[in-house]
Amino acid sequence: MSALPFERVALIGIGLIGSSLARALRRNKLAREIVACARREETLDKVRALALADRVTTDPAEAVKGADLVVISTPLSAYAEIGRRISPALEPGAIVTDVGSVKEAVIRDLKPSLPQNVHLVPGHPVAGTEHSGPEAGFAELFHDRWCILTPLPDGDAAALARVTALWEAAGMKVVTMDAAHHDKVLAITSHLPHLIAYTIVGTATDIEDALKSEVIKFSAGGFRDFTRIAASDPVMWRDVFLNNREAVLEMLQRFTEDLTALQRAIRWGEGDKLEDLFTRTRAIRRSIIEAKQA
Amino acid sequence: MSALPFERVALIGIGLIGSSLARALRRNKLAREIVACARREETLDKVRALALADRVTTDPAEAVKGADLVVISTPLSAYAEIGRRISPALEPGAIVTDVGSVKEAVIRDLKPSLPQNVHLVPGHPVAGTEHSGPEAGFAELFHDRWCILTPLPDGDAAALARVTALWEAAGMKVVTMDAAHHDKVLAITSHLPHLIAYTIVGTATDIEDALKSEVIKFSAGGFRDFTRIAASDPVMWRDVFLNNREAVLEMLQRFTEDLTALQRAIRWGEGDKLEDLFTRTRAIRRSIIEAKQA
Repeated sequence: MSALPFERVALIGIGLIGSSLARALRRNKLAREIVACARREETLDKVRALALADRVTTDPAEAVKGADLVVISTPLSAYAEIGRRISPALEPGAIVTDVGSVKEAVIRDLKPSLPQNVHLVPGHPVAGTEHSGPEAGFAELFHDRWCILTPLPDGDAAALARVTALWEAAGMKVVTMDAAHHDKVLAITSHLPHLIAYTIVGTATDIEDALKSEVIKFSAGGFRDFTRIAASDPVMWRDVFLNNREAVLEMLQRFTEDLTALQRAIRWGEGDKLEDLFTRTRAIRRSIIEAKQA
Repeated sequence: MSALPFERVALIGIGLIGSSLARALRRNKLAREIVACARREETLDKVRALALADRVTTDPAEAVKGADLVVISTPLSAYAEIGRRISPALEPGAIVTDVGSVKEAVIRDLKPSLPQNVHLVPGHPVAGTEHSGPEAGFAELFHDRWCILTPLPDGDAAALARVTALWEAAGMKVVTMDAAHHDKVLAITSHLPHLIAYTIVGTATDIEDALKSEVIKFSAGGFRDFTRIAASDPVMWRDVFLNNREAVLEMLQRFTEDLTALQRAIRWGEGDKLEDLFTRTRAIRRSIIEAKQA
C-alpha cells in the first residue's frame, strides 16, 4: 500500500489548522477527495467560497463515511462527542488523527469510543497564528515547523507511517514521543506563555480608561508582542488549560517562584541578580536562532 | 533661529538607539557634524568602520565641546557620572536630551549637575529591537513610532521645539507628558512585559537539560516570542528596573493578582472565566492594529 495519497480525507473542524491542512492537501495532491465538517453553516459557507473541500456537511458521521483518514481539528472539548458520533460510521482500517495541543486528554476522550479496527494516531502540528477560521489558513503554515505524534504503545505502525508521511508532505519535521511527555513540554513552550500573555493583556485592560488608550498607543515597547499571543482563539485556549491542568499548574508554580525572586531583587536593588538572569536568557534566544525556530 | 539642522551633535553612547539616530541624522542632513562617544575603544572601532560619526572619543567632556545638541543614549546607571563629566564642557545654550526608558530618574540624575544656561529635554523614543551595539542600528527604527518627551515645568520652549523637530524628522510622532506619568505608562507597556519575558525564559532554562533541548525545538508554540524580548540588552534592562522600581512593583502586584485568579480558575475548571478573559484580550489586539502599532 503506498503511503500517499489518501482516498478520502474527512476534516472534522476547519478553522486555522484544518483549513491550512486542506490547502496543503490540495496543493500537494495528498487526497483524492476532501470532506469538510463544521458545526455551523456559516463556517461551511466560507469553506465553499474558498473551495477548500469537495463536499461539506455539519454531520461528523456523514463526513467520515468512506474516509481512510479522519483529522479532528476542533477545540478539545468537542472530541468526546465527536468520537461517539463518528464511531458507528468509521470504515474498518480508517486512521483517526487530530491536531490538538494536549495529547493525554485526546487519548482519554477519543480512544474508548473508537472501534477496535480503527487506528488512532494522536498528533500535534506545532504551528499557528493568532487568527481563527477557515479564511485564516494557508498551506505554508506548516513549513519547517515540528509535528509531534504521540502514538499509543499498541498502535498500528502502518497508520503511524501514513500520518508521518502526511505531515512531512505538508512541510513539517515529524517526531514521536509519549503523550504525557508532550503535555509537559508544551506546558512550558506554549501553554504557560499563552496564559501569561492573556494575563498581562487582561491586567492592562483593567487599568483606568485614561491610561488604557496610552497602553495601546505605546504598545511598541514590548506589550504588543503579548497582545498578538493573547489574541489567539479563546475557546481553543480555554480547552487547552482545562485539559492540561496538572502540567500547566506545575509550570506556573515554577514561574511564580522565579517571578517572586525577581520582584525581591528589584525591591532590594540587587542589580547583579537581574543582570545575571538577563544575560542567561539572551543565550537561549541564540539557541533558538541556531535551531532555526526563530 | 531655524529648528534644524544642528551644528554639532554629540552622541554619548552609540548602541542600538544612538547609532540609529546617527544614521537618521546623516540621512536627513539634521546635523552638520556628528561626534560619537563610547566608553570602549572596541565600540568606537565599529563606529569608525560604519562611518557613523565625523569624530569619535572616549571622553564625554571632549565630545560635548562646541555641541549645540547632546544626546545621551547609555544605560541609565551611567547618567549621573556623565552629567558630572560633561557639565564643565557644555556650551551655553546647548540642549541636553536623552533616550532613556525611565524619565523621573533621568531628571534626578542629570538635572543637578547641569549648568543653568543649558536646556535639559528628557526624551524617550519608544522603539527598539532585541539587538545591541552600533552595528544593530538602522535609520528606519523610528518610523511611525512614538517619541515621548517629558519637559521640565520650567523648561525652555525653543529647546523643546528643536528636540521635537529632530524626532519628527527621524520619522517619529512626538507627544509630551509628565515624567511620572511616563514612568507609569511604560511600566505596564514595556517594563513589566520585559520582566515577565525574562522570567519565563529563565524558568525554562532551569528545567532539566533533557527537556531544555525540546523547549528550544518546540518554541514556535508561543515561547519564542518571549525569547526575543528576553534577548534585549541585559545592562540596559537591569537599569530600567532599578530606576523605575515603584511603578514596576505596582504593576507587577496587579499582574500577580490576576495570574493567581487565573490559576484558581484552571484548578477549579472554571472555563467561563477563562473564555471571558481570552475574549476581552482579543479585543485589545484589534485596538492596537487599528492604532497602527501592530
